[in-house]
Amino acid sequence: MKFTRNGAAIGALALALSNPVAAKPAEGSGVAWEITEGLTTEIGQRLAGSDREAAARDWAVARLKALGFSNIRVEPFTFPGWVRGAEHARLTAPYPHNLAITALGYSAPTPAGGLTGELVYFASLDALKAAPKGSLNGKIAFIDHAMVAAQDGSGYGPYGQARRQGPMIAAAKGAAAVVIRSIGTDLHRNPHTGATGWSDGANPIPAGAVSNPDADLIARIAAHKDRKPMMLSLTLEGRSVGPLPSGNVIAELPGRDPSLPPVLVACHLDSWDLGTGAIDDAAGCGIVTDAALAAQRGGKPLRTIRVLWAGAEEVGVFGGAAYAAAHANEPHAAALESDFGADRVWRVGFDFAAANAPLADRIAAALAPYGIVRKAAKAGGGADIGAISRAQKLAVIDLDQDGTRYFDLHHTPDDTLDKVDPAQLAQNAAVWSEVLKIVANEPGPISGAVN
Amino acid sequence: MKFTRNGAAIGALALALSNPVAAKPAEGSGVAWEITEGLTTEIGQRLAGSDREAAARDWAVARLKALGFSNIRVEPFTFPGWVRGAEHARLTAPYPHNLAITALGYSAPTPAGGLTGELVYFASLDALKAAPKGSLNGKIAFIDHAMVAAQDGSGYGPYGQARRQGPMIAAAKGAAAVVIRSIGTDLHRNPHTGATGWSDGANPIPAGAVSNPDADLIARIAAHKDRKPMMLSLTLEGRSVGPLPSGNVIAELPGRDPSLPPVLVACHLDSWDLGTGAIDDAAGCGIVTDAALAAQRGGKPLRTIRVLWAGAEEVGVFGGAAYAAAHANEPHAAALESDFGADRVWRVGFDFAAANAPLADRIAAALAPYGIVRKAAKAGGGADIGAISRAQKLAVIDLDQDGTRYFDLHHTPDDTLDKVDPAQLAQNAAVWSEVLKIVANEPGPISGAVN
Repeated sequence: MKFTRNGAAIGALALALSNPVAAKPAEGSGVAWEITEGLTTEIGQRLAGSDREAAARDWAVARLKALGFSNIRVEPFTFPGWVRGAEHARLTAPYPHNLAITALGYSAPTPAGGLTGELVYFASLDALKAAPKGSLNGKIAFIDHAMVAAQDGSGYGPYGQARRQGPMIAAAKGAAAVVIRSIGTDLHRNPHTGATGWSDGANPIPAGAVSNPDADLIARIAAHKDRKPMMLSLTLEGRSVGPLPSGNVIAELPGRDPSLPPVLVACHLDSWDLGTGAIDDAAGCGIVTDAALAAQRGGKPLRTIRVLWAGAEEVGVFGGAAYAAAHANEPHAAALESDFGADRVWRVGFDFAAANAPLADRIAAALAPYGIVRKAAKAGGGADIGAISRAQKLAVIDLDQDGTRYFDLHHTPDDTLDKVDPAQLAQNAAVWSEVLKIVANEPGPISGAVN
Repeated sequence: MKFTRNGAAIGALALALSNPVAAKPAEGSGVAWEITEGLTTEIGQRLAGSDREAAARDWAVARLKALGFSNIRVEPFTFPGWVRGAEHARLTAPYPHNLAITALGYSAPTPAGGLTGELVYFASLDALKAAPKGSLNGKIAFIDHAMVAAQDGSGYGPYGQARRQGPMIAAAKGAAAVVIRSIGTDLHRNPHTGATGWSDGANPIPAGAVSNPDADLIARIAAHKDRKPMMLSLTLEGRSVGPLPSGNVIAELPGRDPSLPPVLVACHLDSWDLGTGAIDDAAGCGIVTDAALAAQRGGKPLRTIRVLWAGAEEVGVFGGAAYAAAHANEPHAAALESDFGADRVWRVGFDFAAANAPLADRIAAALAPYGIVRKAAKAGGGADIGAISRAQKLAVIDLDQDGTRYFDLHHTPDDTLDKVDPAQLAQNAAVWSEVLKIVANEPGPISGAVN
């Protein structure tokens, strides 16, 4: 097919130069690919609470049924909704520039006709924190940061605070609005969205992120020797709305012994609305589902494997919370989550009770032929399995993916199928199925560390 | 400075992974960088005919004066203007997707309220050509293509015909509008604009380009086994307007012998409006200007070096035509142009009379230490020097730049300063100055090949 030839041809160069590209693998070569391709093509963006997220649930139920899963159900819940609106930004002084901007989730809307104010540059969140209260009255705070790419994605935690906390801190100092450098590591004019947060009593203000090249421009102007004030005209019409519907899609592959607690494998079905949610997180749903099926080959495992395609993760992990509440009284054997793209698993980590150390050793040994190393730190789990894992002190396994380019794409319009490398996606499914075969055939008790 | 540290840090990874990033070189390290940085920061986009192109001319005159050039003047002209308007596209069937689209230059506007029609997939321009007349009545043609990156940029000629000719061909077959895969080699949601053309008697229709990931999506849907019709809702409000003002900025560094014809070095000052015109073509103006100045070091050359920063190149090389008309009766010694980004010069080519073969050999020998090879084909020159070169059969030298990633960025929002690698930019300026020192000190007649 034409697009395959094209994709493959571009891909050969792109692997060396920019990004891998999707060459469609041979027909039927993998459930992980089929799910990733199908969700991104037939559904596309599926913002939490939208009709597209609802369509994705219907799609998921049909697909899981066709794949032979049992006990398929949707567990509905509601959450505080946020919808996007028009968004644009223009620097009007000292030089006119249109900026590539997107609103952060739970941004307040700008007034009708937009908002104009002086743009005040802060090199970091700490610099903003040091600004005197009231010093930003009527102004727009710009928060820069220095996140760089890392294989373990470790920059996202600290630098991401500019997005998570920055708007609330700027609002407390009187800012009329806040703009941040995208929490991302790419050099494209595609800003990164993501949720911000407001504590009780906070006064939400408009909050957006500009792309890295636009942030570079702002930083250059702020550092100019003839420093002149920057003025920004801002329109961000995204706004919070009332409760919106979402839901978790759950399905099972029953084990030989239904009395044993199941193994829970999770991903999230919702996505941000700028791209098609390929790496975040269609690929994750593809990986866990493919692996659950692959773990059946060579004989049905002892334990049931339960797949959770969670809803409304991006906007606050509401699906994970709903799952934990609904299943609080059911024991689980272990929990794993795939929500860090589609690049290869390079490391494994555990949060296991001391008694389960031999099980961890067996898993690590099974993954060694894949070039997978063991991490010293305790497994962190993931967003959607977090609540149930903490509540039940579950055994947790991290199958860490290579995140070097994850934050080039995360929460941007560029989260599209071409960014998924079929070979690395297949490695994920293979590695996961190795792990599930071991865990789901473990007859004895499995649990997390006591502390 | 903060942004330098950040840029440099991202850059270390980006060089391996995606794109080089600009780490600002030491203060005053190069006129090429200062011009590229200044034009992109203080002017930004400078669409032909816009007030920003006019501001760029003022900026250019001031900068060339500060750099010590003589005979600085603006030679005004007018050309058929085109202005951008609102632009969006939404696939409404078989699956809803917002597409990243931009209008092509000289696109006709869609009617008020937009236009909706069946999107008909053609795998190539040839496939469109084979469609029966009238078969597209009321429909929207989609033209795919298979351009891939190449060091010599050779894909742009043939595959770019989808943009240059495709709309006119689709219109002749009755299409209501046309959408093409961007003429580009990247995988980002940033469509590539560029001019299309209408012959006399053609009926202009709305014409746009979607990004490569969006084109991949359309190709996947078109190739789906349960092929269902695609419906597209399209708004492209860009439109042709009457004559607009532009101008060429010309400046000179006088040689020791004013009776000898000057060496002409050219770039273009206008840019497309989506990015800031860093690689296309602020860098070119930086390179030729830096080199002209550097060629003065060690002694003023025999011949005058004339710098042409042409206007209105992107929309039809109107500046080059105006220059050729205004200077038809002045002899020129040779012409060179820089308009292919900021990556390193890797090859040199000549269009020289047989009598000037020794001069070509001397130039090639001087460039050999830079790893620059000589091309077998005759030099092609460049857009803005094309008319004067043909009219006067000028000697032309091609200093071919590495174009491997040029069409990742060309005509997109991503044409920003971070894409310019200061080390490669400096290599360009150094190579150009070597060449200018030789050519501008050649006492004898210089001319192009007879055929």
